[in-house]
Amino acid sequence: MKWVGPIRISGNVAETETAVPLATFETPLWPSVARGAKLSMAVARGIVTTLVDERMTRSILLEAEDGPTAFDAVRVLRRGFDQLREVAGRTSRFVELIDLHHELVGHLIFLRFEFTTGDASGHNMATLAADALMKHILQTIPGVSYGSISGNYCTDKKASAVNGILGRGKNVIAELVVPQALVSSVLKTTAERVATLNVRKNLLGSVVAGGIRTANAHFANMLLGFYLATGQDAANIVEGSQGITLAEDRDGDLYFSCTLPNLIVGSVGNGKSLDFVEDNLIALGCRDGAQVGDGARRLAVLVAATVLCGELSLLAAQTNPGELMRAHVRIEREPISGH
Amino acid sequence: MKWVGPIRISGNVAETETAVPLATFETPLWPSVARGAKLSMAVARGIVTTLVDERMTRSILLEAEDGPTAFDAVRVLRRGFDQLREVAGRTSRFVELIDLHHELVGHLIFLRFEFTTGDASGHNMATLAADALMKHILQTIPGVSYGSISGNYCTDKKASAVNGILGRGKNVIAELVVPQALVSSVLKTTAERVATLNVRKNLLGSVVAGGIRTANAHFANMLLGFYLATGQDAANIVEGSQGITLAEDRDGDLYFSCTLPNLIVGSVGNGKSLDFVEDNLIALGCRDGAQVGDGARRLAVLVAATVLCGELSLLAAQTNPGELMRAHVRIEREPISGH
Amino acid sequence: MKWVGPIRISGNVAETETAVPLATFETPLWPSVARGAKLSMAVARGIVTTLVDERMTRSILLEAEDGPTAFDAVRVLRRGFDQLREVAGRTSRFVELIDLHHELVGHLIFLRFEFTTGDASGHNMATLAADALMKHILQTIPGVSYGSISGNYCTDKKASAVNGILGRGKNVIAELVVPQALVSSVLKTTAERVATLNVRKNLLGSVVAGGIRTANAHFANMLLGFYLATGQDAANIVEGSQGITLAEDRDGDLYFSCTLPNLIVGSVGNGKSLDFVEDNLIALGCRDGAQVGDGARRLAVLVAATVLCGELSLLAAQTNPGELMRAHVRIEREPISGH
Amino acid sequence: MKWVGPIRISGNVAETETAVPLATFETPLWPSVARGAKLSMAVARGIVTTLVDERMTRSILLEAEDGPTAFDAVRVLRRGFDQLREVAGRTSRFVELIDLHHELVGHLIFLRFEFTTGDASGHNMATLAADALMKHILQTIPGVSYGSISGNYCTDKKASAVNGILGRGKNVIAELVVPQALVSSVLKTTAERVATLNVRKNLLGSVVAGGIRTANAHFANMLLGFYLATGQDAANIVEGSQGITLAEDRDGDLYFSCTLPNLIVGSVGNGKSLDFVEDNLIALGCRDGAQVGDGARRLAVLVAATVLCGELSLLAAQTNPGELMRAHVRIEREPISGH
Repeated sequence: MKWVGPIRISGNVAETETAVPLATFETPLWPSVARGAKLSMAVARGIVTTLVDERMTRSILLEAEDGPTAFDAVRVLRRGFDQLREVAGRTSRFVELIDLHHELVGHLIFLRFEFTTGDASGHNMATLAADALMKHILQTIPGVSYGSISGNYCTDKKASAVNGILGRGKNVIAELVVPQALVSSVLKTTAERVATLNVRKNLLGSVVAGGIRTANAHFANMLLGFYLATGQDAANIVEGSQGITLAEDRDGDLYFSCTLPNLIVGSVGNGKSLDFVEDNLIALGCRDGAQVGDGARRLAVLVAATVLCGELSLLAAQTNPGELMRAHVRIEREPISGH
Repeated sequence: MKWVGPIRISGNVAETETAVPLATFETPLWPSVARGAKLSMAVARGIVTTLVDERMTRSILLEAEDGPTAFDAVRVLRRGFDQLREVAGRTSRFVELIDLHHELVGHLIFLRFEFTTGDASGHNMATLAADALMKHILQTIPGVSYGSISGNYCTDKKASAVNGILGRGKNVIAELVVPQALVSSVLKTTAERVATLNVRKNLLGSVVAGGIRTANAHFANMLLGFYLATGQDAANIVEGSQGITLAEDRDGDLYFSCTLPNLIVGSVGNGKSLDFVEDNLIALGCRDGAQVGDGARRLAVLVAATVLCGELSLLAAQTNPGELMRAHVRIEREPISGH
Repeated sequence: MKWVGPIRISGNVAETETAVPLATFETPLWPSVARGAKLSMAVARGIVTTLVDERMTRSILLEAEDGPTAFDAVRVLRRGFDQLREVAGRTSRFVELIDLHHELVGHLIFLRFEFTTGDASGHNMATLAADALMKHILQTIPGVSYGSISGNYCTDKKASAVNGILGRGKNVIAELVVPQALVSSVLKTTAERVATLNVRKNLLGSVVAGGIRTANAHFANMLLGFYLATGQDAANIVEGSQGITLAEDRDGDLYFSCTLPNLIVGSVGNGKSLDFVEDNLIALGCRDGAQVGDGARRLAVLVAATVLCGELSLLAAQTNPGELMRAHVRIEREPISGH
Repeated sequence: MKWVGPIRISGNVAETETAVPLATFETPLWPSVARGAKLSMAVARGIVTTLVDERMTRSILLEAEDGPTAFDAVRVLRRGFDQLREVAGRTSRFVELIDLHHELVGHLIFLRFEFTTGDASGHNMATLAADALMKHILQTIPGVSYGSISGNYCTDKKASAVNGILGRGKNVIAELVVPQALVSSVLKTTAERVATLNVRKNLLGSVVAGGIRTANAHFANMLLGFYLATGQDAANIVEGSQGITLAEDRDGDLYFSCTLPNLIVGSVGNGKSLDFVEDNLIALGCRDGAQVGDGARRLAVLVAATVLCGELSLLAAQTNPGELMRAHVRIEREPISGH
C-alpha cells in the first residue's frame, strides 16, 4: 500500500486536496495515478466531481399463483409504498426505502428495493430491510409466496445493465480539463490523440467485445487498490468497473471525464474497524462528516477522482507506441498487467 | 484470512483433499464454503473438476487506410501465423501464440492474440509478446499504422461477452452430485427446491437484470477471497464472476455444477513472492508441478471447487425463508452482504 | 398471409376467441401456431394475458457545459415535470408525458421521455413531443445546448437492456396451463421435457450466446408475421424479440408463459390505412374500442397469445429428436428455418 | 415499395451502379436513402464494400453424463472434424461445414456448426445438416444423448453477442468518404458534427442503453425495407441490426462507414420464387453469378451500401435542430418514426 497524490478535488461533495491510499500488487499503478494527480494540482479547480445519485438495492423474488395475481400484487404494493417504507425504516435508523421497481416474468415477481443507507455501503442494512419487507408482504398479500431473499435483480457483484440504468451505489462524475501545454509536457501526447484513442479503444473496442455498459480502459485496477486500502467489499469492483470514459479535444485542451454509476462504498461497517483502515479513513477525512452519509459521499468522490487519474495516465501512455512498455520496464522490470 | 476445508477434488487436473485459504471481510463466507467442503468429503469422488481450456489474451488496435486494406492485412497475418508465433515466442520461453482472432470496424483492425503462458496468469507475458507482434506487423504490413497496444477486445477486467466465447484464462467445470440424504441433513433443503431457485434467481433473475454471460449467485465473493490469499490480481474477478451455475433434481439427489470460463490465475509472477502468498501456494501444492503450467492449472481447479462450495451453500440457504438471516446474525451480529 | 386459429384469450384486456393473420414466407409457422391455438381452445380460460404496462419513449441528447451544469439541469427539469407534461401535451391530444429518466455521461445528458400515445404505436407522436420538449428546454435551461433529437437511449429497433428495464411499448404476459393429457396427445411430449428444454436452450443457451434480456426460441417469427399482417412497423421486432419463455412441470401439467416486455403495436397510424390492414384490424376487433387505446391494447394481447402458440409448439417439437425435421419436410419439402 | 438510387458501389464483390428496392410503410426512408445514394454517385469509387466473411450456423444441444464425458466428446469431435464435414456434405451439394465451436456448461454441450451455403441464406440447409450431424454424433459418441436440434447458441433472430464474435451470415463493411463541399451542400452539416454525433448518440447512447454489440441509429429500417423487397426472412433483422457506424472528420471530409457483421441474405430459397421478388433479384443482378454464392454475396454488399445511405442521411439530419421534423412534416404530414 502506498499513498499517492495529493489530488485536488472540487464539486458538490468536497473541496479538498488529499493523497489517496492504493493497495496493489501492480506497482506501476502508483506512478500512473500520481501523474493524473499532478495534473489535478496544476488546474485551478482540479478534478470536478459531481455526486449524481446514491442508493443501495436488494431484490427479492416472489412467486404468485399466476400472472394476474402477480400484477395485482405489484399494484397493491406500489399503492402501499408508504407502508413499505415504514416497515423498512423499523429495521435501522439509517435505512430509508426510497424507490421500488418490479419485473414480472410469467407468474414470478422480482421486486427491487432501493434504500439510502447512511455512511454504510449498505449490503447488510438492505438485506435486513428486505427480510422485513418479505415477511410483511407474505403476511399481507394473498396468492404470493416466498421465492428467494435475493432474486439477482439487485444485482450484487455481477455484470449486468440494471445497476447503471436503475442506480446502485453512488453515481459520480469526475471531470478534468487539461490545458494543452500540460497535455504536451506531462502526458506527452495531444488532446486529439487521447480523444481518438478513447473512441476506438474504450467505445468501439468495448462494443466489439460484447461489453455491457462499459467503456473504459482499467477502472477496475484503481477501484481494487482503493477498496482494499479502505476496507471496502472489493468484490463490488465487478459492477464498479462498469463505467464510461469520455475524452474530447477542445481546441488543444483535453476534456477528460470518468462516469462511475455504480460505486459501492462505505465509511462504516464490515471491514472498517481494522486499524489500518480506520487510519486511512480518518486521514481521508471520511470519519468526521457533519451529516449522516457525508463520509461515504466523500469516499465516493475520492474514488472517482483516483480512477480518473489512473485512467487518464494510461490512455495517454497508450497513444504512444512503446511508451507503456518502456515505463513499466523501468519501474518493475516487467510490464504492467491489466489493461 | 482463514483456511477452510478440506475439500475433496478429482478430475483431469488434480486428485486431492486440501483446505483452501480465503481472505475476506465477509466472515460468513467461511462457514458457507465449509459447508460445501463437508459435502465434498462425503462423496466418493468429491467435486469433479474438468479443465476445458487455458489461454491468456491481449488485443491490439491497428488503423488501416481503409476497409479493403484492413481486410488484406488480416488475411496476410493469418497466412503468416507461424511467423507471428515465432515472433511471440522470442519474447519469453514460457509464452506461445496459439490462436488469433480479428474484428474489423470500418478501417480499424482489432487483433486478439491468444497465448499459453505457463504458470503465470500471463498479463505481462501477453503484453510483452503483443508489443513485439505490434512492431513486427508495423514493419511488415503496408498501409497499417499504430492504434493502441491494447484495444479492449482482450478484454481485461471489464464486463463483456468475448472472454467467455473466445476464451480467456482457465475454463473450468466443477461438479458435485449430493445424495438426497445429505441434501436434507446438511443443506436442509431438497434438490427440487435448489434446482427451481437456480432457474428463477440465477437464470431468470440475471436475464431480467440485463446480465451478460452471467448466471450465478455470488462467484465473486469466493473468487475475491481466494485471489487475495494467493496473490492473484484480484481485479480479474470482474470477468471471473461471469460464470454459470446449473442445478438439477436427479430423483432427489442434487446435481450441482459451476462453470467458470474466465478464471485468471497464476502460481508465479506479480504478487506471488510475498511470504504469506508463497506459503499458501506451497501448502496448496501449486509450486511443485511436474510440468510447466501444472501449478496454475491446479490453482484453477482449487478455485473452481471453492466457488462451488460457497455457491451451493448460499443457494441452499436461500431456499429457506429466513435461514440466511438467522445464520448470519448468529455468526457476526449482522447479516451477510453480497448476494 | 393466412388466418390461423381461433385462439381463446382471457385476461385484463380481452376475453375473446379469434383467429389471427400471419404473413410469412415460413409456411411451417402456420401449423405451428395452429397447434398452440388448438390447445388454447381446449382449456377453459384459454391463454391468460396480462397487460402490465404501456408507454412509448424517445430520448434526446443535450450537451451541458460541464457535469455540475448537467446535474443542475436535470434537477430543474425533474422539479418542473408538470410543465414538461404540459409542453408535451400541447403537441397532440393523444400524447401524455408520464415519466422521465436521465443518464449523465460527463457533461452530456441523455433524457428519456416516456409517453402514452393512445391507439398509435407512437413513434411519431413521441418524436413530435420530444421536439417541442427540446425547444422548451433549450429556451429555459441555461448552459445546455442541442445534442440530438434522438440519443439512442430510447431505444428504437436496437438490441439493448433499457427497454425491458424502463419499459417501452406494451408489456404483456401470456400464460397457458396445458393438462397432462393434452401435453401428451397434442404436443407429443411431457411437461418435464418441455421445462427442461426451456432451461437448457432458452435460458442457458441464450446466456452462453451472450444474449441480452432474451430467453426464447423464436418470438421474432411470430412477431414478424403478425406485424406485417397488421401494418405495424416490423423493424420493432428487434426489441420485441427480447422476451422470456418460462415452462414448468406442475405434476404433469405444463405451465407455459411468454413475457413480452417490449411490444410496439398500434391500431392507427402509419401503414394502418392500407385496405388489407384495415380489414385485418377490423376483423381482430381492434378498431372499435370503447376508450382511446383499447385497440392497441387488444392488439398487444393478441400478439402475445400468438407468440405463445408458436413458441410452445416449437419447443414441444424440439423435445423429440427428428420431429421438427419430419414435420417440415411433410409441409414444404424443406425444413423450417429460423429457430 | 419503391426503387431508390442509383447507388455507386465498388469493392471485393461488386463494381456497379444500381438502384435498390425498399418496401416500407415509413415513406421518409426513401428520400433518406436517396440522399446517401446521390452522394455515392458523386464520389469516384462510390461506396466501397468489403465482404469479410460468410457462414451460416446452427447449434445443437447435447447432454453428457457429466463434465468429463462432455469434454472427452468435444475432443473426439474436434479430432474427427473431417468426418463431420463429410456427414454434413452428404445432405446437400451446396453445404460445407467450415468450423465448429463448443461451449460446455456443466454436463451440457452446445455445439455450433458453421457452414457455407452457396446462394441460400442457409437456415434450412444448416438445419438439415445439423440433423444429420446430430444423428451421427449420437451413434458414434458414447455417453452423449439428445438435447435439442437447436441450442440457441446459433443464434437465430435473437439479440446476442455470439453472432458478431464468431460470425453468422455475411460480414460486410461499407465505406464512403464524402468531400467537404458535399458534406456542406448535400448533407447541410460538417464532418466534425457528424463525427461528434456518432460518438455521442451511436456509441455512448448505445452504451448507456445497455446495448449489445450495437452502435448505430437505424440499420433496422433499411434492412427491413430491403429484406421485404427481396424475399428475405425479415426476422433476421434482429441480429442484422447489430452493427457499427463509424464517422471521422478528415480535415473537413467525412469518413463514414457501416460495419454489418451479421447479414443473413440469400438469392435463392424460401420466399425467392414470388414474382416480384424474382423480378427484383434479377434487376439487382443477383441471379446470374458466375460462381455459386455470387448472388448472395452481391445482395449482401447491396444491402450494406443501402444501409450506409440511410444511416448517413439520418445522422446528418440529426446534427441540425429541427431538420428531421421539418423534412418529415414536408414529406408525410407527420414526422418519421423509428430512430
